[in-house]
Amino acid sequence: MSGAHVVSPPSVDEHSALIASMLGAILEASTEESSVSDALGRVVAESVLAPVDLPLFRNSQMDGFAVDAVSVASAPVALDILGTIAAGDPVGDAHVPGTARRIMTGAPVPDGADAIVPVEDTDVRGDTVTVRVARRTGEFVRDRGSDISAGSTLLPAGVVLRPRHLGALAAAGLSVVPVRRRPRVAVIATGKELVDVGHTLGPGQIYDSNGLTLATSVIDDGGDVVFRARSTDSLDEFSRILRHAIAVADVVLTSGGVSMGDFEVVRDVLTPLGGRFGHVAMQPGGPQGTATVEGTPILNFPGNPVSTLVSYIVFARPLIRRAAGLPVAEPEFATLDAAVRSVPGRRQFLRGQRTPTGVVTTRGAGSHLVATMASADVLVDIPADVVDVAPGTRVRVWEL
Amino acid sequence: MSGAHVVSPPSVDEHSALIASMLGAILEASTEESSVSDALGRVVAESVLAPVDLPLFRNSQMDGFAVDAVSVASAPVALDILGTIAAGDPVGDAHVPGTARRIMTGAPVPDGADAIVPVEDTDVRGDTVTVRVARRTGEFVRDRGSDISAGSTLLPAGVVLRPRHLGALAAAGLSVVPVRRRPRVAVIATGKELVDVGHTLGPGQIYDSNGLTLATSVIDDGGDVVFRARSTDSLDEFSRILRHAIAVADVVLTSGGVSMGDFEVVRDVLTPLGGRFGHVAMQPGGPQGTATVEGTPILNFPGNPVSTLVSYIVFARPLIRRAAGLPVAEPEFATLDAAVRSVPGRRQFLRGQRTPTGVVTTRGAGSHLVATMASADVLVDIPADVVDVAPGTRVRVWEL
Repeated sequence: MSGAHVVSPPSVDEHSALIASMLGAILEASTEESSVSDALGRVVAESVLAPVDLPLFRNSQMDGFAVDAVSVASAPVALDILGTIAAGDPVGDAHVPGTARRIMTGAPVPDGADAIVPVEDTDVRGDTVTVRVARRTGEFVRDRGSDISAGSTLLPAGVVLRPRHLGALAAAGLSVVPVRRRPRVAVIATGKELVDVGHTLGPGQIYDSNGLTLATSVIDDGGDVVFRARSTDSLDEFSRILRHAIAVADVVLTSGGVSMGDFEVVRDVLTPLGGRFGHVAMQPGGPQGTATVEGTPILNFPGNPVSTLVSYIVFARPLIRRAAGLPVAEPEFATLDAAVRSVPGRRQFLRGQRTPTGVVTTRGAGSHLVATMASADVLVDIPADVVDVAPGTRVRVWEL
Repeated sequence: MSGAHVVSPPSVDEHSALIASMLGAILEASTEESSVSDALGRVVAESVLAPVDLPLFRNSQMDGFAVDAVSVASAPVALDILGTIAAGDPVGDAHVPGTARRIMTGAPVPDGADAIVPVEDTDVRGDTVTVRVARRTGEFVRDRGSDISAGSTLLPAGVVLRPRHLGALAAAGLSVVPVRRRPRVAVIATGKELVDVGHTLGPGQIYDSNGLTLATSVIDDGGDVVFRARSTDSLDEFSRILRHAIAVADVVLTSGGVSMGDFEVVRDVLTPLGGRFGHVAMQPGGPQGTATVEGTPILNFPGNPVSTLVSYIVFARPLIRRAAGLPVAEPEFATLDAAVRSVPGRRQFLRGQRTPTGVVTTRGAGSHLVATMASADVLVDIPADVVDVAPGTRVRVWEL
């Protein structure tokens, strides 16, 4: 029972809802044109109509002879060969009934011809072809528009463009395609202890991994990392970097500087600008912040690497994917293969590994365990009100 | 019953085995270094050992006070505050037993201190902290190497690098990672009827879609498209393009020019060089060719767009993915929701769509139906000896 003066920390779902409301505007679909040749993996923003019939013209399905079906209604029958039409040739003169023209796959069928005799069903001697198998009207002729007619929907909105879609766009002569604009994301890692990989560490320093983890996660989820920077704990430096980030990005992600310490640069800069900092009832990732500055939403994740990534997966991934138009995977259920002990009052996101029969959690729950995190393939989601979880329990798992 | 003079066409499996033997050399793992920051999606070629302990040094898990456990074995207890250690600070002097230092998350723990008291369990007045909760040795201290110790496996070979793996590499100070070299693939679309998108079609001409479909498929499957070209039916032009392709690529893919017609540029150029052309017992994709020129394997697919893509999926995709070190999805089984009629003697790869209960085949099996192919999400695999397939039958499906 909480007394009147005790405020429970918000739940994960409450914090998610807050962030979704902050990000409302960027979740609206926004359209841009992409070159079809660069559009692999992009999301179709508006239905694409076929600008032409496909096939564009009546053409042959086989290498063989273009004939009129009346003349080959019974076989064998010998016909004069009046010429050859290759793929890429113009269609030429109309068909002369009772004759044949050699024709190649994809070549236009002359007006008046209405069947193709495959070459393997013929014998040729000089300028005469003997057709050995009778054919009916339309056989081996591909009619104009038989695949799709001009004005019909070639690709509906929402399609994630795979090679076969790009092929269909190209076949229809389209060089650009309307796609969802990628959400523009800025990533700022903070902490004076951070050093870029490739540089020498001083005492007490560590290599920055959060910037790379967040930036590549955003790319994976269909976002565009328009700005990436690292800040020390200097208020001036962080303010300067943040000003640039909000100018260029739809949403800004930060790591570090949000908790209870004496040097919390993100909290200290953003609180006067209306930022809200506090605990969410989860572990890892408890300390969280949010702010909206000059209209740009800013999500402030804690700086421990595991906390940063879990925060991203739980709070940012679903929204960035939604903004990108990509499908959002719902957590699935799996069977826990070994007992788990959790912390009361906080929803736990433990690192886990799939097994042939379910999942097990990895050793160690510390939010600094980056190597352990790398060896995990799921987050195991233990509700806040659960402490002891027995083997065989069905638990929610989030794909990493 | 086939007589002595009738040679059955090779089956899909026989042709796959032939191609696998041709591609043997490129399937061997070959290693190159990638910058960690560019390695998203690449495949780890050799186990990566941690070059350092992680954490690199003993550090604090909480914002709070570094103490010796003996002094806080019972609480409350008041301790003098001797200073502050922030993250990124050097560790400084050894701990003075019976005192405390303020310490921030991630900051190094002084020698002699062996527990951290979280700030929320303390009251501070001036230079004195009152610890309200007793603590034991090791609490909230992250030991050096407690995540991973130097020389242990950080990432095993074969891992497809996701953000969490890149984060672990960065945290360990690694700026490069040994990855599988991507197979270098050249793509050549042939046919004098083909025109690049964006240009005006003449009579009898169509837009090339095969080049884009093959190139983006290769990229999707972890290959590197090192050369892409289009050739008319000119033997000289195709020969010139092919010479460049075999010089730069591990494997060359071509479309078109392999069947029974009079102008089959791929067949005509490669047959004198030892190329083998003929039918495989499948539909679409029946006409197939293979050659090895100056050690470079060349796979020659037919030119109808659906035939090209089906050939790629069945014959090239598994090998390119294997060469790239990526997992190869086995065809799954699904229930056919509506009857299918197939052609005897040929394995059919029909285009299908998933339904809530299984799969249905799309209308039309013609190998020119690019729009229909775009609307499909699976290939439905009907064995060569099957003609009528009843609803409810379990069929193999290949993900598109």
